[in-house]
Amino acid sequence: MNSNNKSKSNVFGDMPAEEFKEHGYKMIDWIAEYLTDIEKFPVIPDIKPGDIKNKLPKNPPRTSDSFEKILADIDEKIIPGVTHWNHPNFMAYFNSTSSGPGILAEMLSAALNTNGMLWKTSPSTTELERVTVDWMRQMLGLSESFWGIIYDTASVSSMHAIAAAREEVTEYSFRQKGLSGGEKIPKLRLYASEHAHSSIEKVAILLGIGIDGVRKIPVDNEFKMIPEKLSEAIIEDRKNGWRPFCAVATVGTTSTTSIDPVDKIADICEKERLWLHVDAAHAGVTAMLPEMKYIFKGVDRADSLVVNPHKWMFTPIDLSLFYIRKPDVLKRTFSLVPEYLKTAEDNSVENLMDYGIQLGRRFRALKLWFIIRYFGVNGIIERLREHIRLGQLFASWIDKHPDFERMALTPFSTICFRAHPAKINSEAEIDKLNENLLQRINETGKLFISHTKLNGKHVLRLSVSGIRTEERHVREAWELIQIKLKELFMQFSC
Amino acid sequence: MNSNNKSKSNVFGDMPAEEFKEHGYKMIDWIAEYLTDIEKFPVIPDIKPGDIKNKLPKNPPRTSDSFEKILADIDEKIIPGVTHWNHPNFMAYFNSTSSGPGILAEMLSAALNTNGMLWKTSPSTTELERVTVDWMRQMLGLSESFWGIIYDTASVSSMHAIAAAREEVTEYSFRQKGLSGGEKIPKLRLYASEHAHSSIEKVAILLGIGIDGVRKIPVDNEFKMIPEKLSEAIIEDRKNGWRPFCAVATVGTTSTTSIDPVDKIADICEKERLWLHVDAAHAGVTAMLPEMKYIFKGVDRADSLVVNPHKWMFTPIDLSLFYIRKPDVLKRTFSLVPEYLKTAEDNSVENLMDYGIQLGRRFRALKLWFIIRYFGVNGIIERLREHIRLGQLFASWIDKHPDFERMALTPFSTICFRAHPAKINSEAEIDKLNENLLQRINETGKLFISHTKLNGKHVLRLSVSGIRTEERHVREAWELIQIKLKELFMQFSC
Repeated sequence: MNSNNKSKSNVFGDMPAEEFKEHGYKMIDWIAEYLTDIEKFPVIPDIKPGDIKNKLPKNPPRTSDSFEKILADIDEKIIPGVTHWNHPNFMAYFNSTSSGPGILAEMLSAALNTNGMLWKTSPSTTELERVTVDWMRQMLGLSESFWGIIYDTASVSSMHAIAAAREEVTEYSFRQKGLSGGEKIPKLRLYASEHAHSSIEKVAILLGIGIDGVRKIPVDNEFKMIPEKLSEAIIEDRKNGWRPFCAVATVGTTSTTSIDPVDKIADICEKERLWLHVDAAHAGVTAMLPEMKYIFKGVDRADSLVVNPHKWMFTPIDLSLFYIRKPDVLKRTFSLVPEYLKTAEDNSVENLMDYGIQLGRRFRALKLWFIIRYFGVNGIIERLREHIRLGQLFASWIDKHPDFERMALTPFSTICFRAHPAKINSEAEIDKLNENLLQRINETGKLFISHTKLNGKHVLRLSVSGIRTEERHVREAWELIQIKLKELFMQFSC
Repeated sequence: MNSNNKSKSNVFGDMPAEEFKEHGYKMIDWIAEYLTDIEKFPVIPDIKPGDIKNKLPKNPPRTSDSFEKILADIDEKIIPGVTHWNHPNFMAYFNSTSSGPGILAEMLSAALNTNGMLWKTSPSTTELERVTVDWMRQMLGLSESFWGIIYDTASVSSMHAIAAAREEVTEYSFRQKGLSGGEKIPKLRLYASEHAHSSIEKVAILLGIGIDGVRKIPVDNEFKMIPEKLSEAIIEDRKNGWRPFCAVATVGTTSTTSIDPVDKIADICEKERLWLHVDAAHAGVTAMLPEMKYIFKGVDRADSLVVNPHKWMFTPIDLSLFYIRKPDVLKRTFSLVPEYLKTAEDNSVENLMDYGIQLGRRFRALKLWFIIRYFGVNGIIERLREHIRLGQLFASWIDKHPDFERMALTPFSTICFRAHPAKINSEAEIDKLNENLLQRINETGKLFISHTKLNGKHVLRLSVSGIRTEERHVREAWELIQIKLKELFMQFSC
């Protein structure tokens, strides 16, 4: 390491190397300590809107601040307002936790700072992505007919899926002609269950399909799409002048992690010539487990699939995997190569910018590579299996307790439940009780769980997918829930 | 630091803290050395498609690999295929370089791993974004009427701009009804100059406007949009049944960094009631310099603006800033709140998921915060000013040399030029010469520059925006270019 960086000639340069090392070590120490001691923090901070903002200067600093001061401000000003996603007691939503190898890979990615828009602009960025995406394909048990790519989020993956589906409506070129203002333009209709993720509707808005262009198919009492209802909807829509073009099936819906019958939906899509997109953003990774392979029944017949390693595979946000069986359609939809991006290798390589809306592509594959290698496929499987075991354990406690009831099946590790003491029979009162219970639990700062509504009922939702979550955390969560119910119940009884 | 992490109870957990520290220090050392010695590497690797892929195992490892092995593989298998964006001689495209504070902030962001979809899911993530985005607004000299948000890339920022513009076509609700299949749907038309970035057309494809819905306005001999041509196009289009709804002006076009006359375009947009979006992704940051303020003349009258700190503000990719004067339109376009994402604070906070397509939002504001504080506004200004000085210096060398000519104005630090020795007069031969020259230069591995086409001519393009680029690198680049021309010219003459 030379000291040129500090020479006058480089007065305009970057942080000098020796300084980077000094601050870098401190930051590594800070992170190691943060993750070791994370249970000392409340999962959700007890602050009011504006509390953090008000601690920060309104104007940017004209002159340089020392790194020590920045680091001190993290502790004093930022951490008090952080919701700790890496906390083992974060059991809300679908948690995303990051792991040591993922954190270090993210830093390396920032240091290399490649933009993999073209093969030439960093061959390793493109080729490591090809390799790791194919590793994941094998891990998920998908056939070789799936070509994969990394995007940022599941919303963006589904956006590309539905844009490709739209382009496959072959009687019309949406890419060229657009959708607006013509009489002969097909009136597009997209199908998803009532329990599909809100991103599907957002994508429909974006793509010009509109909320009216999304038809929500009813679910059965297990919150799974009813395939017969999909069939009927398509037939009815065709009669009324719609052009059905795509169906979205979900493996692990957001509210209950229900699994749509993908194989039956695939039958319908094949018969009706619809694009089948499968959203397995959260639960898809568990298809790696031999005992969970069944969740992907029919997925090999889908046209596209999204699985998010940044949700349940310990990968720092963001990294969403998108698989498609006809990548040429994606390329046909989006490829536009201006002169300044043409290279000599264009005919012999894959330039990943051709497969999407974003030109800038960071080196996300490093995270997958580090994580798969550091933990090994077996190590990842063991962790997922443990989370599912803990989820089933919690479900069994709910089932055995007279004052609680389970509100949905638990195929993975997300449990929908509610308190329902025998003495309370009015649905309105049960709802009120559970709303209060959720608030009481979360305001302790010891546990963070979330809620949903199922058949109009207020339902609590506890999800186990964090890399730091152990059995003791799930046991403590269960105890806390029971204590808070007792407290509330005593109030109700008075 | 306790040793619980290594205890049996946590066999399923993350990399133990002591191990994280050990590997973390090594990774910090690796990065410090890499950035110090980066000039030892060729800017572009001399490899063939598949070379990297073939060095990597086809199947994922079942068992855990040691971190040492992973780190060794970076040197042996990944680096040989990396195009070094952080190299001071990377002068192609618009370079993105990352800085020490940005790299450390990215690692911190991965360690906290917050998802700022809701205020509640990490108040600091939302509030630090509000603060830093407002710092940048002040630094860019924009009025308080601009509300800002961080997205990933300029493509996605422009996508949100044009989606909001589409929703502002008030006689029709695109969000609800979509664009497809109706007779009364306005036939949308979007305007941008012939030199606008390809992302604008990609966005038009995505949003259902289609390539046909984009009308490219001719440029003058300085590659700036001709406002009169925009006026004429709008009038003609209205006569022909189009619904003009949005114009995109560019401050710093991709080929030549030309600056569209934003003030005149704003006049037209006001008169014709079009949404005005300004793409200043690369050059916008220079509006911080007092002497460059003129580039934003008229920008305060725009409806939206994109500026990318990940391009020319030393921020690891990705971080794109989007400013909009009517954030309510963006919210009206995209907000969809399913039950499971409702919180008690919804009416008193900004939930940033409401303003875009992506639900997942990483903690990107940390990068801006670290970089602005570490360098200070003055430090950032000094660096940008130096890059512009170096660009002007290179332009002056081109102008003085009899065998070279400048092909466009140089308002920033990107120079469009070509070799044009007096003896060669055929345009076809000049093109051929410059194509060969580019190849010869880049294959040395000592410099990476790119090309474009201007008025059908093959033009070389050198851009100075890297934090490690000093005057000596620009001088060496110029010498190399002259040497390579001499070599080629001797061949041509023989």
